[in-house]
Amino acid sequence: MKKLIKDKTQFLPDMLDGLSISNENVEVIADTVVVRKHKKEKGVAIVSGGGSGHEPAHAGYVAQGMLDAAVCGEVFTSPTPDKILSAIKAVDNGDGVLLVVKNYAGDVMNFEMAQEMAEMEDIQVETVVVKDDVAVSDEAQRRGVAGTVFVHKIAGYLAENGASLSQIKEKLNELLPTIKSIGMALTPPLVPTTGQYGFDIDDESMEIGIGIHGEKGLSRQKVESVDLVVERLIAELLNEIDDERLIVMINGMGATPLSELNIATKYVAQQLEDKQKDVKLWLVGDYMTSLDMEGLSITFLPYTEQVYEALIAPTSSPYFNA
Amino acid sequence: MKKLIKDKTQFLPDMLDGLSISNENVEVIADTVVVRKHKKEKGVAIVSGGGSGHEPAHAGYVAQGMLDAAVCGEVFTSPTPDKILSAIKAVDNGDGVLLVVKNYAGDVMNFEMAQEMAEMEDIQVETVVVKDDVAVSDEAQRRGVAGTVFVHKIAGYLAENGASLSQIKEKLNELLPTIKSIGMALTPPLVPTTGQYGFDIDDESMEIGIGIHGEKGLSRQKVESVDLVVERLIAELLNEIDDERLIVMINGMGATPLSELNIATKYVAQQLEDKQKDVKLWLVGDYMTSLDMEGLSITFLPYTEQVYEALIAPTSSPYFNA
Repeated sequence: MKKLIKDKTQFLPDMLDGLSISNENVEVIADTVVVRKHKKEKGVAIVSGGGSGHEPAHAGYVAQGMLDAAVCGEVFTSPTPDKILSAIKAVDNGDGVLLVVKNYAGDVMNFEMAQEMAEMEDIQVETVVVKDDVAVSDEAQRRGVAGTVFVHKIAGYLAENGASLSQIKEKLNELLPTIKSIGMALTPPLVPTTGQYGFDIDDESMEIGIGIHGEKGLSRQKVESVDLVVERLIAELLNEIDDERLIVMINGMGATPLSELNIATKYVAQQLEDKQKDVKLWLVGDYMTSLDMEGLSITFLPYTEQVYEALIAPTSSPYFNA
Repeated sequence: MKKLIKDKTQFLPDMLDGLSISNENVEVIADTVVVRKHKKEKGVAIVSGGGSGHEPAHAGYVAQGMLDAAVCGEVFTSPTPDKILSAIKAVDNGDGVLLVVKNYAGDVMNFEMAQEMAEMEDIQVETVVVKDDVAVSDEAQRRGVAGTVFVHKIAGYLAENGASLSQIKEKLNELLPTIKSIGMALTPPLVPTTGQYGFDIDDESMEIGIGIHGEKGLSRQKVESVDLVVERLIAELLNEIDDERLIVMINGMGATPLSELNIATKYVAQQLEDKQKDVKLWLVGDYMTSLDMEGLSITFLPYTEQVYEALIAPTSSPYFNA
């Protein structure tokens, strides 16, 4: 296995050590929890997390204007309730804590347990669950993928601007069903902790509708030119969204060169223009990856002035650029 | 060939179209020249460029505080003098134009021809040539690699702060011999315009001292754990730099997950600490890539207060985070 790592059992601590060395605004507590070095003195604290392997998500978004803490599990593995509780206790300043959870059984369960434990210690906690992946037809089962990063930014913005815990939860619960994502991959992720590929695929095929943990997709196709690839993805998204004004993220899966994300952007823009859609904001880059998977996802979010303002507001995260 | 492109002959224009759609601060002129949408009214204009395939370099650095224009050649191919001249003429506001050129024969020749053509039209032009790759032993032949991005940022900062063309050239010529880089790769880049790999390598080897155009390296080794990999690279760099205080860039080659760059950062930091080096600033991410090559480069720059101030000064580039 060719990977730039020291030891597969040290992947997570080594990564977090490296992150906190190069980013002077964060520190690691309780081994696997990344928090801001300067704790916010007031306002709702935003906590997210999940398995690792999605960098810069989530630890890269611990920053002024976004998250207060990220709880980092092992690669593709939910963090444990005690670590989530450590994060909650570290960031709570009395104004309450919002948990942003991607919809995976382990994450939902462990964050819920941590919430209960925190409530027993009289900390106010609320949870929102992101289910943006339209590749899963049953809406209740939809995975949380790249759209989660929009939720981090909007939650962080609302907290920064003094919204209360219940106000933030209410806003996000209105917003969440409107965020839609779908991904595709040319290659599977190679999981450094096991040496195994997420799935098998030959040199001429691509997978449409993949997850971010090596989950296989909706369908397997011969590789097509990128305009046809994005046409498939856009069709799935527009089944669910009929707004005319959109915010669009073209997200790289980890090993996709920026040049290819730019090329995809051209064809997404062209096809949306043909459909009389007006894109008010583009985000193009690696926001929610799957280790070294080659591929991309597209996320659509209906434009509103408030969402737009929240997304373009400053943040000290080096990884969120809108 | 699995690539997210439409047509290999359209790689460059498609990429630039996509870039200018998602980045509202830039536009494309003369087909392959990326300029700021709002031309700077005074101050030296900074122009760079070269072959494509190194994204975000160079077009991603066309931004307030960095470049005024990037001239984009085809993949791994120098831009032609007429395009470079178009860039110079587009950005000159009477205060002169500085060309930042990576040390490759074609680039040096074509930028020089463009400079002569511009001078015949009474535009003041100066050139600096970046030769930071210590993998090449003959200093005159050294390639320009990731250290070029430091030069973009520092040149842009000086221009923004009112330095004259001759002052900027002089500062950069003092600085240039102190910037040292070296890279390594686990895999070669796949060149989308030809369908060919940059070099052949087996599943158990890595190449130390590679260039950013598929140039083979100094030596080929069995893949080692990342602490040993960075030890090799650091040894080469410290042969050339004995300053105690450093600025360090850990640069991804295009397909390297951020997690692995973070892990490498930990071991670089550890080894530099053991050698009593004091790192004052870290840059970790994809700054100067080679398509979808998996690997990294390390750049050392001696710390001075002025260089530090220049690097942390704001820029509107989404891709330069210090």
